[in-house]
Amino acid sequence: MLSPGDLILLWSPAKGDSFLVRLTPGSTQGSHLGQMKHDDIIGMEFGEIISTNKGSPFFILRPTVGEYTRRIKRQTQVIFPKDSGFIIQHLNFGPGSTVVECGTGSGGLACVFAHFVGDNGRVVSYDRREEFSRLAESNAERWGVRHRIEFKTRDIWNGFDERDADALFLDVQNPWDFIGAAHEALACGHRLGMLVPTFNQIEKALVALSDFGFVDVQVLELLMRYFKTDPRRIRPDDTMTAHTGFLIFAAKACRLPAPESSGDEPAPEVKDG
Amino acid sequence: MLSPGDLILLWSPAKGDSFLVRLTPGSTQGSHLGQMKHDDIIGMEFGEIISTNKGSPFFILRPTVGEYTRRIKRQTQVIFPKDSGFIIQHLNFGPGSTVVECGTGSGGLACVFAHFVGDNGRVVSYDRREEFSRLAESNAERWGVRHRIEFKTRDIWNGFDERDADALFLDVQNPWDFIGAAHEALACGHRLGMLVPTFNQIEKALVALSDFGFVDVQVLELLMRYFKTDPRRIRPDDTMTAHTGFLIFAAKACRLPAPESSGDEPAPEVKDG
Amino acid sequence: MLSPGDLILLWSPAKGDSFLVRLTPGSTQGSHLGQMKHDDIIGMEFGEIISTNKGSPFFILRPTVGEYTRRIKRQTQVIFPKDSGFIIQHLNFGPGSTVVECGTGSGGLACVFAHFVGDNGRVVSYDRREEFSRLAESNAERWGVRHRIEFKTRDIWNGFDERDADALFLDVQNPWDFIGAAHEALACGHRLGMLVPTFNQIEKALVALSDFGFVDVQVLELLMRYFKTDPRRIRPDDTMTAHTGFLIFAAKACRLPAPESSGDEPAPEVKDG
Amino acid sequence: MLSPGDLILLWSPAKGDSFLVRLTPGSTQGSHLGQMKHDDIIGMEFGEIISTNKGSPFFILRPTVGEYTRRIKRQTQVIFPKDSGFIIQHLNFGPGSTVVECGTGSGGLACVFAHFVGDNGRVVSYDRREEFSRLAESNAERWGVRHRIEFKTRDIWNGFDERDADALFLDVQNPWDFIGAAHEALACGHRLGMLVPTFNQIEKALVALSDFGFVDVQVLELLMRYFKTDPRRIRPDDTMTAHTGFLIFAAKACRLPAPESSGDEPAPEVKDG
Repeated sequence: MLSPGDLILLWSPAKGDSFLVRLTPGSTQGSHLGQMKHDDIIGMEFGEIISTNKGSPFFILRPTVGEYTRRIKRQTQVIFPKDSGFIIQHLNFGPGSTVVECGTGSGGLACVFAHFVGDNGRVVSYDRREEFSRLAESNAERWGVRHRIEFKTRDIWNGFDERDADALFLDVQNPWDFIGAAHEALACGHRLGMLVPTFNQIEKALVALSDFGFVDVQVLELLMRYFKTDPRRIRPDDTMTAHTGFLIFAAKACRLPAPESSGDEPAPEVKDG
Repeated sequence: MLSPGDLILLWSPAKGDSFLVRLTPGSTQGSHLGQMKHDDIIGMEFGEIISTNKGSPFFILRPTVGEYTRRIKRQTQVIFPKDSGFIIQHLNFGPGSTVVECGTGSGGLACVFAHFVGDNGRVVSYDRREEFSRLAESNAERWGVRHRIEFKTRDIWNGFDERDADALFLDVQNPWDFIGAAHEALACGHRLGMLVPTFNQIEKALVALSDFGFVDVQVLELLMRYFKTDPRRIRPDDTMTAHTGFLIFAAKACRLPAPESSGDEPAPEVKDG
Repeated sequence: MLSPGDLILLWSPAKGDSFLVRLTPGSTQGSHLGQMKHDDIIGMEFGEIISTNKGSPFFILRPTVGEYTRRIKRQTQVIFPKDSGFIIQHLNFGPGSTVVECGTGSGGLACVFAHFVGDNGRVVSYDRREEFSRLAESNAERWGVRHRIEFKTRDIWNGFDERDADALFLDVQNPWDFIGAAHEALACGHRLGMLVPTFNQIEKALVALSDFGFVDVQVLELLMRYFKTDPRRIRPDDTMTAHTGFLIFAAKACRLPAPESSGDEPAPEVKDG
Repeated sequence: MLSPGDLILLWSPAKGDSFLVRLTPGSTQGSHLGQMKHDDIIGMEFGEIISTNKGSPFFILRPTVGEYTRRIKRQTQVIFPKDSGFIIQHLNFGPGSTVVECGTGSGGLACVFAHFVGDNGRVVSYDRREEFSRLAESNAERWGVRHRIEFKTRDIWNGFDERDADALFLDVQNPWDFIGAAHEALACGHRLGMLVPTFNQIEKALVALSDFGFVDVQVLELLMRYFKTDPRRIRPDDTMTAHTGFLIFAAKACRLPAPESSGDEPAPEVKDG
């Protein structure tokens, strides 16, 4: 039974419009098809229909983490489920993982990470901009994962506080400047991830990953295409999101392979950032 | 420190070749670059280098759930991380979820689901073919999630045993035949997912979803493109996997909207499969 | 030197806006950056700059056939250069070819065909709707290829007038109904092409092609992605056209292969539509 | 009626295998389904069936320019029809055009260009490597367009011989080094095209285009996906070509816009390479 504070998705069959709503006694949800009182929804169940004051039906659906991160209050580009779903698998997240990210932005990725690490896991999220940490906190609160995330409002020019992190993700404009810091914070043999929108950034990131001896470097992009759902006219949608960003992954080696040109020197230790 | 029974990824910088290995005392891993004794790896750490008897280095990396499901012993098409990552988000899995799937196949998707529901969650996986349940059990055992999965070796023509499942996934050739059974087993307002390779299957599935009053129906496909990682020559790989399958998602409504043609009859109850 | 009646492309560096203009003495071209008098452009050369009355520069460029067909006056979906460029190659058009198409629509494809068959070639374009034949005539006139096209305003339920056409293209909603007519009009061993937006249409077209013994059947789609052109931030555009249509091609066989189940009967003649 | 010297496509329904063959009295075409004598094919018609000595049928089809360029004898990467079809439209080729390209390579693009400019058009193709000019000549001979192409075996460091070309295409590793030469050879307001495989090359080309005042710069890529043609199981092929190259286009301006930082100096003339 739905209670005050629950997060629901109101979905209209008329237009496919939908609203992500946190049930608040006394509140009203508007739409171009009419209004719905939260008090009328409280006490109903997921899957039921609420009608607007104009008689239009909305289905009460359980929101998904993917939809939530697409709809959060934001001041930055949000992460898309196509990307975050791949990230959590390639960074090998799971219940109990400890993960570190920079920067927080609107907190979408931190919410996904917190969702999947569970109550025994922990997310540490850095951002130097106070307003982003606050916004992300509020978004994490709303999704119910605030207690799993530690927000740190500072830059990482002097590195991360963490060591032996299970995974580390950089969502910053200049990730190449922090590959050393990431190397220091990450557990050996574990994965670093990055998201960058341009090819020029890929180029710089690849050079930095090589400098710090990261291995199993992968660069990829994901494209998602929706289809129209009329069974008599199945076809791709007319337009699609053509680009969100390129994903870069690499694994931390504990020791660099000996330089090819070297003679009889010992294998160097990896730089510590 | 790596111990017998641990699962590791051996990754060669020479060719990008890699092997997924479960450490077993007395065993040897072969490669075209030479052999490695498991006993030499036991006691080492992730991130370190093991050399073959011919002197070629392999890095010892922590395997990821995505890689694991790509490399399992299989007799069926496996799920790709690009697809499973989107599925777990749109089906809203997380630590503690109860999810039902049919069919088990080689168990790749069951392993991903079990990885993300954690020890407090539960996966029930149906397949009518005994050999697949056994293969999947063995693959789940190897990934360490066997205890989270209940394998049921029977068909679902008479429905699922479960009710109020958090999510349900159909990975069968004829999902349209089981939309009623899925409706019965799924919690109201929650999500059903399907993967089908052909358009003809999409067509039939969409008709069945409509018959059972499912809402928020989405059909999509994900394309993944890898890039070469030489920073001086960044470009997409020459070839790519162009198709794995189409994903179909829908939410269970508890009550069907009144048929448009109906006069003054009451809204019908949803069929129960 | 540009003369009255010439077709030019006015391209603004400020916004990337552009206009396709036919020079007409006394006319004025408006834009949000100000106005340009055609009389000022007449006498200039391609590649020069004309300034608006507000001082904004527009470059005078030579329009391309691809741009022209994208910008024609239209009442129907136009053909995209990515698709028409592939069509003319797979249908093997060239100077001197005789090609037949149905339906005319806004005439975009007929203009492309007429452009490439040259003055020694011939395009016959059918449409049952008078207003489309007129619109297409006007568009062909503007591009200067009207004399190469014969517009026929009638349906093709009773077939085409032509025989031994070098190539034939069907751009209609129900191409499967006209595969027989196409077979009759096309030269043996030559190519038929179709463009359909949905998968349901592909299904029906493939069945009809098989019934009439067409061979070397190919189904494909083309996706085009534009990139931003700032050399410091090279990246795909945020959105793209995700779908125009699927292309279907097949070659006409003069004789059907003997049915597999047949005993000792002679090979059947191909149906004649 | 097919004669000695004709180019035909032999297409097998059994496997979809096909051969591009120039009919030569006394010759034999082998295949894993048996052999076919050219003398048996001479005198037949396009669209008919020739049987191998083992009784397997091959259809005699008319080859297309797209297929031809994919199958030419080659020592270099060939152009794909998806790309060349877009190029000829964006460069505005047609019967009678004069076009210049560098480098010749195996001659595939020169053959496409020559096919579409017709007997009144002219293609000039530069390559500094004698063996490529010879190979391309032989390929052009076979397609029947040798007389429309002038092969020049020299580098273009000192520029092209031509002026006022209708279009110019650079298919070389370092196109940025020849943007000035291209500017000099091209007619004002007309189009330059390039094909480059890597992003690093796009970056350098964009800078050079800007230096020489080219306008309407466009960067794009084309992806082509084939589908399986069984009407009961319509689906994309499992794999596809993920990358051939990026296309870059730009139009030549006759006069550079005044530099933004300039004070009261006159608008500079464009550099002449």
